Amino acid sequence: MGHDALMLGVDAGGTSTRAVLVTGQCECIGFGAGGRGNPISAGPDAAADGVLDAVSRALAPSGRTLADVSVIVAAMAGHTAGKEANTWLLDRLAVEGFAGRLVFESDILAMYSSGAAEAFGYAVVAGTGASAVRVSGGVVEASSDGLGWLLGDRGSGFWIGHRVVRAVVRDLDHSGPATELTGGVLDQLGIASGAAAGTGRSRSLEQVVQALYAMRPIEIAAFAPLAFMPGDAVAESILRRAGEHLADSLVAVLRGPGPLVVGGSVLSRAGLVRDAFLERLGDAADGLAPRPVADGVVGAGLLALRAGGVQISSAALERLSETLARFR
Amino acid sequence: MGHDALMLGVDAGGTSTRAVLVTGQCECIGFGAGGRGNPISAGPDAAADGVLDAVSRALAPSGRTLADVSVIVAAMAGHTAGKEANTWLLDRLAVEGFAGRLVFESDILAMYSSGAAEAFGYAVVAGTGASAVRVSGGVVEASSDGLGWLLGDRGSGFWIGHRVVRAVVRDLDHSGPATELTGGVLDQLGIASGAAAGTGRSRSLEQVVQALYAMRPIEIAAFAPLAFMPGDAVAESILRRAGEHLADSLVAVLRGPGPLVVGGSVLSRAGLVRDAFLERLGDAADGLAPRPVADGVVGAGLLALRAGGVQISSAALERLSETLARFR
Repeated sequence: MGHDALMLGVDAGGTSTRAVLVTGQCECIGFGAGGRGNPISAGPDAAADGVLDAVSRALAPSGRTLADVSVIVAAMAGHTAGKEANTWLLDRLAVEGFAGRLVFESDILAMYSSGAAEAFGYAVVAGTGASAVRVSGGVVEASSDGLGWLLGDRGSGFWIGHRVVRAVVRDLDHSGPATELTGGVLDQLGIASGAAAGTGRSRSLEQVVQALYAMRPIEIAAFAPLAFMPGDAVAESILRRAGEHLADSLVAVLRGPGPLVVGGSVLSRAGLVRDAFLERLGDAADGLAPRPVADGVVGAGLLALRAGGVQISSAALERLSETLARFR
Repeated sequence: MGHDALMLGVDAGGTSTRAVLVTGQCECIGFGAGGRGNPISAGPDAAADGVLDAVSRALAPSGRTLADVSVIVAAMAGHTAGKEANTWLLDRLAVEGFAGRLVFESDILAMYSSGAAEAFGYAVVAGTGASAVRVSGGVVEASSDGLGWLLGDRGSGFWIGHRVVRAVVRDLDHSGPATELTGGVLDQLGIASGAAAGTGRSRSLEQVVQALYAMRPIEIAAFAPLAFMPGDAVAESILRRAGEHLADSLVAVLRGPGPLVVGGSVLSRAGLVRDAFLERLGDAADGLAPRPVADGVVGAGLLALRAGGVQISSAALERLSETLARFR
């Protein structure tokens, strides 16, 4: 080989996967994206495909191979360092020449590390799911929510989408207020507003119900963007409540000042969710320095550096972010 | 043959099916039970098995056969009179000699008819699901909720069970109040109270979350009975809210006085749900005469009589109920 050992950070998500190739000097020398990479939702074979695609694209610009990589950190939901069986991924990496160490980290620690190299701080992530964590000593010390669509994820994209469709069926059912969300959901489902069906329900309500139960529940998150269209009181109250829930999740893990990394599409946009989030935090927001991040790929790279024995710092994070920006 | 034509009423549910064989004189001469009978949840073959088992047991005491039956009314969720393809059931009945007419009715109209022969009135049903209807002219004229576990069924067994497990994860997550429900859910899942897992969560929380996502969502209804154990403030507030939701669903369809048929396990027990239901109704309860019913099988029999051209009345309902009681 004759090269310095390289490290790979992989941010493996339910819909897509990103990988960064980094040197011991905290420089990104490759970036690649692939398909879904979480074995829990995608199945191990498809997840390994997603990770391998992202990895091979990250290796391409430098012409290096997996044999040059000493450590891979794979960050994904439902995985915590060192606890999971890794053969679904390690076997596939080995076939491609990887002989180093594979370490799993949580996706939210990667998200945190995309915005903060500090050993102590917080992350709030609200994408399809939602959770808040306190990081201390570089590990997740406490977490709040992140309980999935059925049990929690309050304030998440799923939560908002679910509130949207429930408001719509209550509108069509005449048990809740009229809302412009109804037209949006009917459009998105390709259903026309219709007359009564002779069963005590409108035909459009029956069609909406049928269409929604034909979806996987998590796909309800696809209706969340409708709530962000301004001017509807029902939509606004959903967004405000989402922001409040996210603040409550953060408050549950707060212990003094620290960086606050904010990730995911729900909270990253300016508007009602973020306003309600900050209002609800009130004085608790003092001493928190919000840092928005797009995803966990920079953090996965930083965690890979750490796992490879490199001292990480805010300067390292900055260098990694800047050098990655050339590839995205 | 040489007999008067007989009618069969079938109350086909998601977990079991009941059938009654009735004469033109409104007398029950047979009752039988079978397995799940709803083709939407059980699949058409298993559902036809459930219905056929119940039917053959209902025929057994009299020694009559399906060739003697002129009309079958099959009441089930998701079916409305005359709209559904019936071959999944009719073909199987024909093999057994049935040459009469098969009519589908909604399960909630059967439930209503188990308690009322009046052409105008109301039914509130809260079992695994929950809905309220107004019956007028002998058909369901308006309905409220009944939207299923994902979109509604507010106040149902699923709704209560879902609130129970969400209260438990919030207790274990320290984001909600402590509740005795936690011990009950841990026991029911066979999980021990445990120490921290080193991921910012207790091990029991992780195990509860894992166990709940391994279930089909609707099975969460199995935790509803825990809420009925007295003495816990969280459980009491869940039950009160359930009663209020059921009252709201009824109010949405109220148009003047009439019989009120109350079905399903949630509202049939005396206690907090029913108290909160009546409190919330307030003056709206004036002129409503609540009539609890166990299921929709008597009503399916009554609807079969009606479909067979027999004039139905409160006397007919009473005779059917009394003669059925000998078989159950």
